[in-house]
Amino acid sequence: MKEKIRLGVIGLGCRGISLLEAVMLPHADVELAAVCDLYEDRREKAAQMVREAKGTEPLVTGNYKDVIAMEDLDAVAITASWENHINVACEAMRAGKYAAMEVGGAYSVEDCWKLVRTYEETGVPCMMLENCCYGRDELMVLNMVRQGIFGEVVYCEGGYCHDLRDEISFGRENRHYRFRNYLNRNAENYPTHELGPIAKVLNINRGNRMLTLNAVASKAAGIHDYLLREKGPDYDAASMEFMQGDVVTTIIKCARGQTILLELDTTLPRPYSRRFQVRGTRAMYLEDNRSVFIDGPEHKALDFKWREQWNNVEQYREQYDHPVWKKYLAEGVKGGHDGMDWLVFRSFLDSVKAGAEVDIDVYDAAAWMSITALSEQSIAMGGAPVPVPDFTNGMWIQRETKAPF
Amino acid sequence: MKEKIRLGVIGLGCRGISLLEAVMLPHADVELAAVCDLYEDRREKAAQMVREAKGTEPLVTGNYKDVIAMEDLDAVAITASWENHINVACEAMRAGKYAAMEVGGAYSVEDCWKLVRTYEETGVPCMMLENCCYGRDELMVLNMVRQGIFGEVVYCEGGYCHDLRDEISFGRENRHYRFRNYLNRNAENYPTHELGPIAKVLNINRGNRMLTLNAVASKAAGIHDYLLREKGPDYDAASMEFMQGDVVTTIIKCARGQTILLELDTTLPRPYSRRFQVRGTRAMYLEDNRSVFIDGPEHKALDFKWREQWNNVEQYREQYDHPVWKKYLAEGVKGGHDGMDWLVFRSFLDSVKAGAEVDIDVYDAAAWMSITALSEQSIAMGGAPVPVPDFTNGMWIQRETKAPF
Repeated sequence: MKEKIRLGVIGLGCRGISLLEAVMLPHADVELAAVCDLYEDRREKAAQMVREAKGTEPLVTGNYKDVIAMEDLDAVAITASWENHINVACEAMRAGKYAAMEVGGAYSVEDCWKLVRTYEETGVPCMMLENCCYGRDELMVLNMVRQGIFGEVVYCEGGYCHDLRDEISFGRENRHYRFRNYLNRNAENYPTHELGPIAKVLNINRGNRMLTLNAVASKAAGIHDYLLREKGPDYDAASMEFMQGDVVTTIIKCARGQTILLELDTTLPRPYSRRFQVRGTRAMYLEDNRSVFIDGPEHKALDFKWREQWNNVEQYREQYDHPVWKKYLAEGVKGGHDGMDWLVFRSFLDSVKAGAEVDIDVYDAAAWMSITALSEQSIAMGGAPVPVPDFTNGMWIQRETKAPF
Repeated sequence: MKEKIRLGVIGLGCRGISLLEAVMLPHADVELAAVCDLYEDRREKAAQMVREAKGTEPLVTGNYKDVIAMEDLDAVAITASWENHINVACEAMRAGKYAAMEVGGAYSVEDCWKLVRTYEETGVPCMMLENCCYGRDELMVLNMVRQGIFGEVVYCEGGYCHDLRDEISFGRENRHYRFRNYLNRNAENYPTHELGPIAKVLNINRGNRMLTLNAVASKAAGIHDYLLREKGPDYDAASMEFMQGDVVTTIIKCARGQTILLELDTTLPRPYSRRFQVRGTRAMYLEDNRSVFIDGPEHKALDFKWREQWNNVEQYREQYDHPVWKKYLAEGVKGGHDGMDWLVFRSFLDSVKAGAEVDIDVYDAAAWMSITALSEQSIAMGGAPVPVPDFTNGMWIQRETKAPF
């Protein structure tokens, strides 16, 4: 067991800086050995944060290959733009470094295979930092599912429902990769926040797998209307044609017969939601009014008085809070997105220190990220069914679930 | 303008009796001239209700052709099993009688064409009694859409989310057609409660149309698990294989680029919902927590505090309640499903009395009912895209919206 981890961070935009501050620097067992970004101001800002928090001097570079080449580095965290996640992760694995990838979707199915092959050839683990897998409600529902409260789960639903019109519309000014992606692509471009927790509930890659998907996109009207109102018709992007549909609906069918509905919903006005819904033969969870509904005569009586059950999740907390969260609460919840960021990063660190497998591995990452490339194909073909590859090559039938999931 | 309508009712199961009681018998301008059902006990019960309420003696018959053949009849209401709606409606039209069809889905696209052709050949109107088109929230949202509050509508969602495990499981004992349908078919079998109001919002058949759909079904586990628990393994239906998936997801793409998501969700435990959601470039409505979210700085501030907006629909009532409901409330809301049944039936009666067109016509009915047959095809083909016919034969481009929609 290593006492300290020497970590390099690649990509210091909004997400990189916030993870650095919330979950990387506060860990006493992490040495920030390198900070890397293409932009000098970003990497200098991060370096200054390291100096202030740790009193050490990191390597400061604009070339991620410098980080990966460091001999005494244990791990890299990849918080760069979507386009670079898999490539940088694979280079890190080849150099013997654990890689932690921030979330995103894949641009091709081949890139997902590359991630899997690189892991299988090197034996070096790579974890996707899917923080929502550690959300308190997501883990509580998973815990209830594992205890049989939901009976057999047959349907799950999730979404990335987040009004990102500012971030997307002004992505050039803010050096954000979403602008170029929304301008040119039409896909379920960000599936993992919702799919990750669902995949754990449905034992994807561990007793089950995703077989096919169909995806359909609405027209793209949200960004144009927003820019017209915010900037007027003379602003150049107000007359650009964004190819990304406002709402993308994806249906995934699983080998064990369940279906998963995903919604990407980022360019229309709305409050934030991950739209998490889990449906079993004996219970239901719905995030959009935070209600749990368990089968039985007393619940049937409430059928048409649903409002009385809204926001009843806390009633189940004492009995079903996930052990991960019970322990976390006892220790004191720490930073980042209601604590999820801390948990996902802590999980990665523990694996690195122990030289062990990670909790969200390359098979998870490949399967989840492939949905982006596959949905793009399906949308282009009128929602035609597209097969989801079996990145485990048949191992899913015998792979067992792994704690904490 | 006719003073009184002579009406025959065909089909006196649960729905027929409840409409008879709630909205047919209370109307002073309706004479119940005939009651018809295959089962003697049902038709005798209805006849007795007519005698008690009206003091008149209706024709009581087990053969619907007797009703349609009555010379002095103005209209028939068809509240029979799904399989008979279109056929009986067409015979009524051919006999010169206005037909009111209860809701349901079609078994074939050809049957939908038959409905349209019969109307076009006879000139006799036929109305689908889609009560949810007259729901108070549905009409308020439509009113807000018409006033531009939603900007451009790009996505709508709806569902028939109704735990019908009792009705389906014991359909033989209760002589309910759902049993045989759920045993043998796998389709979006009941699309109109959610699709009707959405079609009005999106101007389907009046400036827009449905182009294609994709449908995918989850496995069927709900009824089996329910019967095992309720009746034990010796009850015959507990070992029958129900082909109807527990959750059917359908995505419809419209000519003007909008998408519609439909969910059939009737065999798992859950509270009732029609899952109505309307999304525009400037506002959102979500039934599942009854919230309206209108774009603007003050709403953005609530993005992550959505709970404060749940159930805020009443705030918009005074300003945006639909004129139909304002009038209805002033007169005093009357029976059936929160008043929707009264409004839809009153609309039909008014058209019959005036000899005028109906508010939900054969083009609406054909398009909405066709979703059942089309979804069955798409599900069987792995969610492959299936074209939705243009039942207006191009007239949709120039047909104008019709009050009250």
